[in-house]
Amino acid sequence: MENIKVGIWGFGAMGSGMAKMLLKKKGVEIVGVCDRHDTRVNKSIFEVLNVEKGDSPEVKITPEIDDVINMKPDIALVATDSFTRKTFPKLKLLLENKINIISTAEEMAYPKAQDPELAKELNEIAKANGVSVLGTGINPGLIMDLLVVCLTGCMTEVEHIEAERVNSLSPFGEAVMEEQGVGITVEEFEKGVEDGSLAGHVGFAESIKMIGDAIGWNVEKLDQQMKPIVTSIDRKSPYGFAKAGNVAGVNMTGQGYVDGEVKIDMKHPQQIEPEMEGTHTGDYIRIKGTPEVNMSIKPEVEGGLGTIAMCVNMIPHVINAPAGLKTMIDLPVPRAIMGDMRDLIRK
Amino acid sequence: MENIKVGIWGFGAMGSGMAKMLLKKKGVEIVGVCDRHDTRVNKSIFEVLNVEKGDSPEVKITPEIDDVINMKPDIALVATDSFTRKTFPKLKLLLENKINIISTAEEMAYPKAQDPELAKELNEIAKANGVSVLGTGINPGLIMDLLVVCLTGCMTEVEHIEAERVNSLSPFGEAVMEEQGVGITVEEFEKGVEDGSLAGHVGFAESIKMIGDAIGWNVEKLDQQMKPIVTSIDRKSPYGFAKAGNVAGVNMTGQGYVDGEVKIDMKHPQQIEPEMEGTHTGDYIRIKGTPEVNMSIKPEVEGGLGTIAMCVNMIPHVINAPAGLKTMIDLPVPRAIMGDMRDLIRK
Repeated sequence: MENIKVGIWGFGAMGSGMAKMLLKKKGVEIVGVCDRHDTRVNKSIFEVLNVEKGDSPEVKITPEIDDVINMKPDIALVATDSFTRKTFPKLKLLLENKINIISTAEEMAYPKAQDPELAKELNEIAKANGVSVLGTGINPGLIMDLLVVCLTGCMTEVEHIEAERVNSLSPFGEAVMEEQGVGITVEEFEKGVEDGSLAGHVGFAESIKMIGDAIGWNVEKLDQQMKPIVTSIDRKSPYGFAKAGNVAGVNMTGQGYVDGEVKIDMKHPQQIEPEMEGTHTGDYIRIKGTPEVNMSIKPEVEGGLGTIAMCVNMIPHVINAPAGLKTMIDLPVPRAIMGDMRDLIRK
Repeated sequence: MENIKVGIWGFGAMGSGMAKMLLKKKGVEIVGVCDRHDTRVNKSIFEVLNVEKGDSPEVKITPEIDDVINMKPDIALVATDSFTRKTFPKLKLLLENKINIISTAEEMAYPKAQDPELAKELNEIAKANGVSVLGTGINPGLIMDLLVVCLTGCMTEVEHIEAERVNSLSPFGEAVMEEQGVGITVEEFEKGVEDGSLAGHVGFAESIKMIGDAIGWNVEKLDQQMKPIVTSIDRKSPYGFAKAGNVAGVNMTGQGYVDGEVKIDMKHPQQIEPEMEGTHTGDYIRIKGTPEVNMSIKPEVEGGLGTIAMCVNMIPHVINAPAGLKTMIDLPVPRAIMGDMRDLIRK
């Protein structure tokens, strides 16, 4: 059997990380990469990744997605956007070329949460072309949604769900520092929230709706808040610096209302060097009901590697899935791939 | 749409617990129950459960499974055995009557681990009759296997897996006290291990093989050990009593070997009143690799309720599944059912 052929669209931290992971796996090969960034375009992926080429076939990064499509990949990993509307034309193009897709766009983890019409259209295009499209990542995708859903599986009744992800932004690069407002003043932060230039965490609507639909709660209202985490001491990370009195990160909170009450409660403070002021990182899921479940993962699952792994590890599930738009609650549980990826493909 | 019709075979702690749970759910009804135990046979399930009948149709517990089969349930919950070989004729009979099945038998969580021939046969019988059969429960079924698999999904590489379940036997009844040797002397315990009359935990082989197959590790050898937990003080639980110097429970350990090394390590001490000697209960999953994952659930998910919930919550997944023998790694993640169960059935 031939190797599974993978195309990659977007070769930033996520796309290039997936490439590195794929190069270590058996039964799979990268057949094309599209990225237009100055520092990468027209270069060999091995040069950009700074890894030995070994026996792998050469792959040059192309600015034209058609070059990747022409290689007829079984699946494309699309790591270019956070929002469904922005990534939609890319996904449509790939689906119409009968290529399965895994998208890192946070909103694509549950696109019907905010854009039911686009979700419906994606489902129809995918079905018409006999392929599947999934959005996933560490969060949304696992920590604050799929893992919550999975843990409710051992409960006879669920009354209230709290998911908290306390993570460090220190491992991340300049782009993330900027998106999350690390180092800016409180006034700048508030302006950024007002004009929408500060993204914060994207995914609460998706996670909350995914949980609600999975367990049969009708989430009638969604709320979210975004507050600065102001540091009282100077904090420095490899790519970030926050002076005392300025912003070290973002505290995002979100709520899903069911029958007029908050039944799904999300807390997600993210900042550089949280330990400097006594904050310990971790992922927490606290579910009230019968029996109660109190889970913690300490420290938190690292976001970058976690997203890379989730996307690559879901490749066989997406190839095997019946055609259409899929979400993490439709497919079998994610799992690491330590053997030959071809062994996981059903005929 | 009609209610989902459920039959139950075995009305002990598990079967009757599932009935209680089902009576609180929408879109589902119990159409028949088979059990031959003196204290239950020919009685109304409502009398045995000590719950109000309300608007529910009457169900009399019958000693003859044919009475249940004649009610044409969509699915049967079979809570009669721990071992595949022992439960096999029951499953075969139901499958041949085109009834989907969820089994509580621990070995049925991954029957090919110890009985690949029977697993193959079950798969063929189920397929020939267009229905599905799944074994599940809290453990095996979730805590020491599916949840482990799920957490590897955010990892690029896995090096070593440790799953530990430290639980209390105090909520359980006399049958469990006897199976686990609670209250007997160390000599009696050792004799029970030798002659096979002490069961201990059934499921390590199933959990280890499930994990191995899911992530692509070839588990070439399985080991397990069973040691008495000797109490230094008198311990008393509702159904158990262990005098100082006698057995308060069982410490089960198991190992899965991959490439000559222990890569899957299981620890499962279970005892009455663990807190009396400073043991805190909990479920722990520690996975070495990239990134590392250290999960804990404290206290442990209660075994009885957890098994009841897992079996009932998997009903829609099993009805929806393509025909055949299924395991938890084949199906979408388990989830609580807080809405109408009929909404979860695909046409």
